[in-house]
Amino acid sequence: MTTRLRVGVIGLGAMGAPMARRFHAAGWLHAVWNRTPAKAAALVGELAGEPGVIHAESPAELARTCQLVLTSVSADADLQAVVEAMVPGCHADLTVVDTSTVAVDTARRMAARLAEHGTGFLDAPVSGGVEGARRGSLVMMVGGAAEVLERVRPALAALATDIRRLGEVGAGQAAKAVNQVMAAGINEAVTEALALGEAAGLPLDELIDLLGGGAAGNWFLDHRGPTMVRGEYAPGFRLALHHKDLVLCQQLWRQLSGAESPLVATTLGHYETLMTQGRGDEDISALYRLKCSRRNGSQK
Amino acid sequence: MTTRLRVGVIGLGAMGAPMARRFHAAGWLHAVWNRTPAKAAALVGELAGEPGVIHAESPAELARTCQLVLTSVSADADLQAVVEAMVPGCHADLTVVDTSTVAVDTARRMAARLAEHGTGFLDAPVSGGVEGARRGSLVMMVGGAAEVLERVRPALAALATDIRRLGEVGAGQAAKAVNQVMAAGINEAVTEALALGEAAGLPLDELIDLLGGGAAGNWFLDHRGPTMVRGEYAPGFRLALHHKDLVLCQQLWRQLSGAESPLVATTLGHYETLMTQGRGDEDISALYRLKCSRRNGSQK
Repeated sequence: MTTRLRVGVIGLGAMGAPMARRFHAAGWLHAVWNRTPAKAAALVGELAGEPGVIHAESPAELARTCQLVLTSVSADADLQAVVEAMVPGCHADLTVVDTSTVAVDTARRMAARLAEHGTGFLDAPVSGGVEGARRGSLVMMVGGAAEVLERVRPALAALATDIRRLGEVGAGQAAKAVNQVMAAGINEAVTEALALGEAAGLPLDELIDLLGGGAAGNWFLDHRGPTMVRGEYAPGFRLALHHKDLVLCQQLWRQLSGAESPLVATTLGHYETLMTQGRGDEDISALYRLKCSRRNGSQK
Repeated sequence: MTTRLRVGVIGLGAMGAPMARRFHAAGWLHAVWNRTPAKAAALVGELAGEPGVIHAESPAELARTCQLVLTSVSADADLQAVVEAMVPGCHADLTVVDTSTVAVDTARRMAARLAEHGTGFLDAPVSGGVEGARRGSLVMMVGGAAEVLERVRPALAALATDIRRLGEVGAGQAAKAVNQVMAAGINEAVTEALALGEAAGLPLDELIDLLGGGAAGNWFLDHRGPTMVRGEYAPGFRLALHHKDLVLCQQLWRQLSGAESPLVATTLGHYETLMTQGRGDEDISALYRLKCSRRNGSQK
């Protein structure tokens, strides 16, 4: 029988809260902490009962009482702040699993900082979005020591159907970067092509259905094609977040090759135009607006 | 019971020959013609027996004796030459179905030329490649009058599992252009992203498997990812042919919008570099060579 680890969650946003709920439903959740305390208090209230969930006073207290701390924050600086705040409570029986999307270098620095206290670290960015977090069907891209992963894998199985180790610390973030670059290029491909179809006066729903079954078929066309051509851009995946991730991808490209990725640079430029127009909270498929407006001068 | 149309096939290349065989197996094939007569003679020999297949002396003779002529040629000029050569044999009981990838304008001109003789025309470019032609599992994008399509649909069903009418003459070619633009963009996306993964030292087979199940998942990654990272570039879809199609896509963009597609221009440039290196007969996934060499200066 698996001994249950005591699990803490830091960062109860759009992804962190449903992951905490999944841990609780599976009997693993011990404590939570959030920068805005009201969010943590609300979740603790929601999950009241036997066993209850502790609202930790600080990241250090949470670290002290847990064996696995999962972090889900927005940006590199947030992760660094949270890890520093955990340090006074860190111990050798603790593993920190960061599901945020941050730079490869940041992941490596966090691992080194925690190792000073004997605490293990895995970078474990996820894909599958809020829906995947709710259903426990995330894909988790893991970097770190294999034995550290095996120690916490039974708990992570409450969140993800595919937990894949891709190498040492940083490999998870590198894999996530590959995913985000591919997603950017596919967004460019699908919106450019459908804008051509729109300009040619083709029946776009028919066309999307038709192309989906062929060699140009892809998840994004199937799931975002029908909404984008109706002018619906509710996220999904927020454009400003993808922009943030692509900045990290571009940094990684520069580090590895000394040059930028032209494809990533193009998408960054397009997203910046849309963010200037106040579209940062829309789905990334709002790129279709730009592709159509380029042709007809209007804002579709 | 469906009365069988007498079907002729012009152009017995990589796509035309297997389509002719499918018509024959279904009992529709009456005659064939090919610019290089030896190819037609060989196919007639292969299909000898009861009922035999006629090796027509000319496109005009083939047109005279058939009710459906399917054309499968390489380029716009070839199609124009074949249609002109058919004209003396054209009649009101004939429909010409062109499965080649040509310009929207060329399709419209062919339709008008044939209409002078009461002959129907459908532009019906296909996707699914040689494998799809062999299996009769092509996707056919059709432009033309609905009643003309319904007349020949029972015969076309021997070739394609999805026969989709997208509008009047030219709509099939416009839809094919959308498909080719999307395929170009996806090729750019997948090769760029995997080159980043390669540079980061990630295990590429694992990564391809992982990404295929997520929001960046696509047919090209699943089918060409594993081969490209092994340096295998057997077609598949010949790079020089995709280049030819993308030139047509760019012309269509210019006609419809007065501007070029930046995405298509980028891919055309990449393909031209590869063609200069003698890679035109490789699969389009050979773009991965360029993405990797950009980083490390070597030819992978």
